[in-house]
Amino acid sequence: MSADGYPTSLGTSDPASIRLLGQDLARDLMGRVGFGELAFWLVAGHRPSPGQLRVFEAVLVALADHGFTPTAIASRLTYLSAPDSLQGALAAGLLGGGSRFLGVTEDTGLFLSSALASHQGPLPTDERGWDAMALEVLTGARAAGRLVPGLGHPVHKDVDPRTPVLIRLAEEEGTKGPHLALYEAVGRVHPRVIGRQLPLNGAGVCGAALADLGLPIPMLRGFALLARTAGLLGQLAEELRRPVAMDMYLHIDRAARYVPWDE
Amino acid sequence: MSADGYPTSLGTSDPASIRLLGQDLARDLMGRVGFGELAFWLVAGHRPSPGQLRVFEAVLVALADHGFTPTAIASRLTYLSAPDSLQGALAAGLLGGGSRFLGVTEDTGLFLSSALASHQGPLPTDERGWDAMALEVLTGARAAGRLVPGLGHPVHKDVDPRTPVLIRLAEEEGTKGPHLALYEAVGRVHPRVIGRQLPLNGAGVCGAALADLGLPIPMLRGFALLARTAGLLGQLAEELRRPVAMDMYLHIDRAARYVPWDE
Amino acid sequence: MSADGYPTSLGTSDPASIRLLGQDLARDLMGRVGFGELAFWLVAGHRPSPGQLRVFEAVLVALADHGFTPTAIASRLTYLSAPDSLQGALAAGLLGGGSRFLGVTEDTGLFLSSALASHQGPLPTDERGWDAMALEVLTGARAAGRLVPGLGHPVHKDVDPRTPVLIRLAEEEGTKGPHLALYEAVGRVHPRVIGRQLPLNGAGVCGAALADLGLPIPMLRGFALLARTAGLLGQLAEELRRPVAMDMYLHIDRAARYVPWDE
Amino acid sequence: MSADGYPTSLGTSDPASIRLLGQDLARDLMGRVGFGELAFWLVAGHRPSPGQLRVFEAVLVALADHGFTPTAIASRLTYLSAPDSLQGALAAGLLGGGSRFLGVTEDTGLFLSSALASHQGPLPTDERGWDAMALEVLTGARAAGRLVPGLGHPVHKDVDPRTPVLIRLAEEEGTKGPHLALYEAVGRVHPRVIGRQLPLNGAGVCGAALADLGLPIPMLRGFALLARTAGLLGQLAEELRRPVAMDMYLHIDRAARYVPWDE
Repeated sequence: MSADGYPTSLGTSDPASIRLLGQDLARDLMGRVGFGELAFWLVAGHRPSPGQLRVFEAVLVALADHGFTPTAIASRLTYLSAPDSLQGALAAGLLGGGSRFLGVTEDTGLFLSSALASHQGPLPTDERGWDAMALEVLTGARAAGRLVPGLGHPVHKDVDPRTPVLIRLAEEEGTKGPHLALYEAVGRVHPRVIGRQLPLNGAGVCGAALADLGLPIPMLRGFALLARTAGLLGQLAEELRRPVAMDMYLHIDRAARYVPWDE
Repeated sequence: MSADGYPTSLGTSDPASIRLLGQDLARDLMGRVGFGELAFWLVAGHRPSPGQLRVFEAVLVALADHGFTPTAIASRLTYLSAPDSLQGALAAGLLGGGSRFLGVTEDTGLFLSSALASHQGPLPTDERGWDAMALEVLTGARAAGRLVPGLGHPVHKDVDPRTPVLIRLAEEEGTKGPHLALYEAVGRVHPRVIGRQLPLNGAGVCGAALADLGLPIPMLRGFALLARTAGLLGQLAEELRRPVAMDMYLHIDRAARYVPWDE
Repeated sequence: MSADGYPTSLGTSDPASIRLLGQDLARDLMGRVGFGELAFWLVAGHRPSPGQLRVFEAVLVALADHGFTPTAIASRLTYLSAPDSLQGALAAGLLGGGSRFLGVTEDTGLFLSSALASHQGPLPTDERGWDAMALEVLTGARAAGRLVPGLGHPVHKDVDPRTPVLIRLAEEEGTKGPHLALYEAVGRVHPRVIGRQLPLNGAGVCGAALADLGLPIPMLRGFALLARTAGLLGQLAEELRRPVAMDMYLHIDRAARYVPWDE
Repeated sequence: MSADGYPTSLGTSDPASIRLLGQDLARDLMGRVGFGELAFWLVAGHRPSPGQLRVFEAVLVALADHGFTPTAIASRLTYLSAPDSLQGALAAGLLGGGSRFLGVTEDTGLFLSSALASHQGPLPTDERGWDAMALEVLTGARAAGRLVPGLGHPVHKDVDPRTPVLIRLAEEEGTKGPHLALYEAVGRVHPRVIGRQLPLNGAGVCGAALADLGLPIPMLRGFALLARTAGLLGQLAEELRRPVAMDMYLHIDRAARYVPWDE
C-alpha cells in the first residue's frame, strides 16, 4: 500500500452515507440515473449525454442474447448441476466470452482504433477518403496475414440486421465518429481486397459504435459481457420455468460413442 | 430432446432476422428499449411499466458498487494475474455473490415471500395489521432459531441511506406491495422481539422491492449479480487506469508469517 | 491484519528457498512426494500413510471423469467459445460441481458424520449394531422428510461397481472406520425403511471413505473437484485433438424452437 | 452430431460397468493407478513410465502452492463471501491462472518447442551446440522485441531452487530431452544477449520438463492449474481452520481513499 492508502473514485461509505463516483448514492443516483447510464459512467468517468446513452443502450440490447449459444448452453448445464449457486451458472456462461464467440466487439474496436492511431496526417472528411484509408488498412492486414475482425457472420450471410440500425442510430444521435466511418468503408471496399462480399457483423459494429463513444478499448469486451449477463439471466429464468438442460445433456450423453485413443 | 426440439421464448435467428422475446431485435428493440428495461423483460416475460422500471433501475443502481468489497478485490487480483481474460476477472468477482456478501437481496425476498405465502386469511390493510403479522413472523423465526435476513448492516449502524429512498420511490411509482409493507413492519417491531434496534439493510429492501415487482424470487440474486457486473466493470476500468491490485497483493504477501500447523 | 501479520502453514519463500508445509520444497518434496500425497497433506496437515494414500488416490481416480456429464459439456463449450483461456474452460466445468451432480460425496460424508456425532454411547462393534444404528438414522431422516444422500444412481440401478471395490480397498489398507461401516449398514437395511432396494452410490462411498481418513467434511467436495480437474483436462485435451463441442452446439442450436412465453 | 454419435476415448458407462480410457474403472484403475498417473494418462493417452511419472509429479508438487499469491487471496476472499460454494472459490482462484502469474509454464514450453520446431537440420548433440542454438534463438527474440519467458523471478534473484532439482530429476529418470537442453543453454548464454544474469525460473523449467515428457503444449497451462487446484484446497482448508480473509479485506477496505476521477 502506498503511504496514503488505496485510491478509488468509485464506492466509499461511512456510517451515514454511501458515495459512488463522487455522488451521494441514495440522494443523487437512485431513481435519477438509469442502470445503463450508471454502467457507462462507471467506466467512462462521466455521465453520458442522452444521445450517447441511447446508442450505448442499443449496443447492450443488441448483444444481450442470441439464443442457444455455447455460453447459454454452458450456463444452463451448470445451473442444472449446481442449482444452489446462480452465481456459478452466470460465471460459467460469461467465461465463454472470449476470443471466438463474444470477442468480435472488442477485436473490431481494437482493429479500427489501431488503424486510426497509426494513420499519418488528418483523418478523411468524405466517403472517398475513408474508402482509400480502408483499402490501405485491409491491404496491409492481408499482407501481414492478419484477419479483419467484424467481417462475415455464420448465419447472416448477406446483412446482419443490427448493423444498419446501429449506424442509423449513431447518425441520429450525433455520435458517429471515425471508427464507424472507417468500418462502413471497410464494408464498401473489402470485396476489392478479399474477392468476395461479406456483411458487416453486428457485434463488430457494436465495437465501432462504443469506440466512437470514447469508451476505453480494453473495456469493450466488458460491455459485451454486461449485456450477456442480462441475457444469461433470461436463459436461467427460462430454465427455471421450462427446463431443457436435462434433455440437452441426455441427448449428448446417449450419443456418446467409445473409440480407442488412436482411432 | 423432445420430439419437437428445445423450446425457447428468447433469442432465435434466421439469415434475415434476429428475434428476441417475440420481437424483431433490430427493428423493435434497438434504440427503443433501454438496457434495464430489457433485463426486466428477459426475466419477467413482459415489458415493465415506466414506474416499475424506475424502481427496478434504482435497485440496480443501489447494488452496483460498494467499493473495495471482497468481490471487487478478488476481481482486481484476478485481472492482475490474467490481464488477457477480462471475462475471468469478471467471473471471479461474481463468484463471491453468494450467501454472505451479496445474498441478502434474495434471502430477504425469500423470507418475506414465504411469510406472505404461509399467511392464513386476507393480508393486512393497515400498519397495525402489518405490525401484528411482522411480530408473529419474527417470533416464529426466533423460536426456530432462524436468522431474519436484511436486519442490520456492518457499517450503517443506524440507517442504511438506501432504505428510505427506495421505499419512497416505490410509493411514488405505485409499486409498493406486501413485501415492502411487511419489511417496513419488521423494521418497526423487531426491537420488541430481539431487544435492540437494527437498521433495515439496503440490500434487503432491494429484495423486497424486486419481489413487489413480481419478479421470481430465485432470480433476485441474479439481479444483484447483474448490478454488480456493472460495478466490477468500473473496478476493472479503474484498475486499468490507476492500478492498486499489485500493492494490495504485495501488502498481503509481505505480511505473511509462517506458523506450524498446530500452533 | 493482526499486529503480527497473516499466519499460514503453507507456502512461504525468501530469495534462497521456497518452503511449503514447513518443508523445503525443492529439497524435501520435489521427487520425494507424489501429487496425491501432497494434496492430502495440504488439507490434512500431515503426510498420509501408504495405506491412507492408496485409498485416497482410489477415490480421486473413481471421481475423475464420467464422460459427457453436464460439467464436461459446459467445459468443452466454454473452450470452444474462448480457446485462449484454458483456465476459464476449466473453471466453467468446476462450477457445475454443486449440490446435484458432484455434491453426493460431501453430502454423504456429512450425513454419516452428523449421524455419528449425534449418536449417544459407544459406537457399534458388529454388523448387527451398525444395522440397528442405520435403521434408526434412516427412520429419523424419513420422519423429517430428509433425503438420504448416496442411495441410488441414475445408471447403475443394481450395483455401482466402484462401491465394493473401494470398501475392499479400505479393508485391505486398514482405513475402514465408522463412516464406511455405517454406510454399509445403510446399504443393508434401507429397503426396510423405504420399501425398495437401491445401490450404494460410488460417489457416496467415496465420501464415506474420505471421512474415515479423517479429512475435514467441508473439504470433501473439494477432493471431488480436484479429481474432476484432472478429468476436465482430459476432456479438453480430447476436444483439442478430436473436437465435438461445435457439433454439440450446432445440434442444440438447430433444434431450438420459438414458443411464446405463456405457451 | 455426426451420424454415429460423439466419439470419446474417456469415460463411458452402462448399468453394470464404468469404463475410462478403455479400462474398467473399478477393476483396472481404482487402487492400481495413482492420481498423478491418471492425470498424465488422461491427457497423453498412455500410461507414464515410472520415470516419467516421477518427473511429472515433481512438476505438480513444484507448482502447487506459493503462499499468498493473487490467486490464493482471490480464492480465500471468494470463500469468505460465498462459503456455501467451495467450487466458486476454487474457480475464482483458478481464473487467475492466466498469462502473468501462472502462464510461465506454458509460455516457456511454447517458446522452446517453437524454437525446436523451426530449427533447420539435426538437433545439437553437445553443450556447445545447444549454446549456439540458444544464442541464435535469443538474438532472434530480442530483434523481434519478444520477451523470453522463464527468465528471472521477482523473489529468487539468483537461483530459483526448483530449477536445478527438476533438471537433476529429469536426468536421473532419463526424461531430459531437447526442451530442457535448450532451456539450460538459455540459462548459460542469455547474459551475452541481454547483458545481465537472470535465474531460470522454476515455473519455466516445469514447462520445459513437461514438454520433454511429450505432453501437448496447449495443455501445459492445464497442469499448472491442476497443481494449483491442490494448493487452493490447502488454502481454503486453512481459511476454514484459521481464517485470515476477513482481516485482509478489512485492511484494504479501511485503507480506501476517495480521489476524484481526474486526479
